[in-house]
Amino acid sequence: MTRLRAHSIAISLDGFATGEGLSVEAPFGHAGGRLMEWFFPTRTFVAATGHESEAVGSGTRGVDDWMASRSWVGIGAEIMGRGKFGPQTGPWEDESWRGWWGEEPPFHTPVVVLTHHPRPDLAVGETTFHFRDLPPAEALALATELAGGLDVRLGGGPGMIREFLAADLVDEMHLVEVPIVLGRGVRLWDGLEGLEERFAIESVASPSGVVHRLFTRLPR
Amino acid sequence: MTRLRAHSIAISLDGFATGEGLSVEAPFGHAGGRLMEWFFPTRTFVAATGHESEAVGSGTRGVDDWMASRSWVGIGAEIMGRGKFGPQTGPWEDESWRGWWGEEPPFHTPVVVLTHHPRPDLAVGETTFHFRDLPPAEALALATELAGGLDVRLGGGPGMIREFLAADLVDEMHLVEVPIVLGRGVRLWDGLEGLEERFAIESVASPSGVVHRLFTRLPR
Repeated sequence: MTRLRAHSIAISLDGFATGEGLSVEAPFGHAGGRLMEWFFPTRTFVAATGHESEAVGSGTRGVDDWMASRSWVGIGAEIMGRGKFGPQTGPWEDESWRGWWGEEPPFHTPVVVLTHHPRPDLAVGETTFHFRDLPPAEALALATELAGGLDVRLGGGPGMIREFLAADLVDEMHLVEVPIVLGRGVRLWDGLEGLEERFAIESVASPSGVVHRLFTRLPR
Repeated sequence: MTRLRAHSIAISLDGFATGEGLSVEAPFGHAGGRLMEWFFPTRTFVAATGHESEAVGSGTRGVDDWMASRSWVGIGAEIMGRGKFGPQTGPWEDESWRGWWGEEPPFHTPVVVLTHHPRPDLAVGETTFHFRDLPPAEALALATELAGGLDVRLGGGPGMIREFLAADLVDEMHLVEVPIVLGRGVRLWDGLEGLEERFAIESVASPSGVVHRLFTRLPR
């Protein structure tokens, strides 16, 4: 049975999953890299991106890495919002944009990109992007088919995760609470009153200062 | 040196410190008792209130109790908002109200009650309530004087805690994040962007499901 899973979704103490003023140079807006600082030094990040460096070597292996690594286990497809694929909005003016990730994106699976402006499928390395205008349940059905019996990763951004949570399609969610107060941006929790009734929630505090929150859908 | 300390301030995942629709019967509004369920079974709560029962006996002694108990160590006075003292608003129409706590309130120290409508001091058991209309810094000066060399507890509600945080008067704050999504109520974090720059923040996850966040003011 395919499960829909969201991983490494970082939020501030005040519940913002991204800052204000997003742009190509500042994909998290005024939050800068602060929501993902726990992630960058991990072996999981380094391995996925090839960002090995003198500072982090091949990456840390502590609690944060254990938590992050699960995102890559048993996944056969991803669903992402258009904003994760690239910075363009409205009709595509430049189809030469092939994503943020260069010629070998870290997904290595089919990826469904939700957009009101479909365009032809795009293969980059081992990843194929399928641009579709679909409501959550239909996007999940397509991704499930593409996943070939494995799970589907829900890639974000936050507006999309909220939509799938509201539609009660999410089976597993890994949040990372970062101890900063952003004050403004996109809130993850809006419109989700009572969400806890549908999930078992466990919490793990990391020495790095973040708290991992693991949401597991209760049996229906 | 007297320190100003806030303890056992419970908030939901989405940052609400109390719900919507407060009343005498529902002091936390639609949140009901959910923000404080971690606290009620603790030995600290039972000892402070005398709520011993068959269900909790003299109370639990785990992590939640360790965290809660600190609220009672080295405190010489409290500052609270009028809403914590009682449900009346506007000019006092009934001065016979002596607080929620019966004839032996759990404070056993002077308590400064901030209100735009001062009234005469009120002694109940070992606690004396001082009703004053003061800005945060002056309220702290008065409470410090009353505390006789011990620390001052900042008792809440959330609007008041936010005000003292904004004025940078808080030395220590113990938050308790409860894994529920309230959706509406009074937010703790509004207007406090960048608060983390002034504090060391440590987190402890409890088996009960809550996460304790300990804020300690960095040296000025």
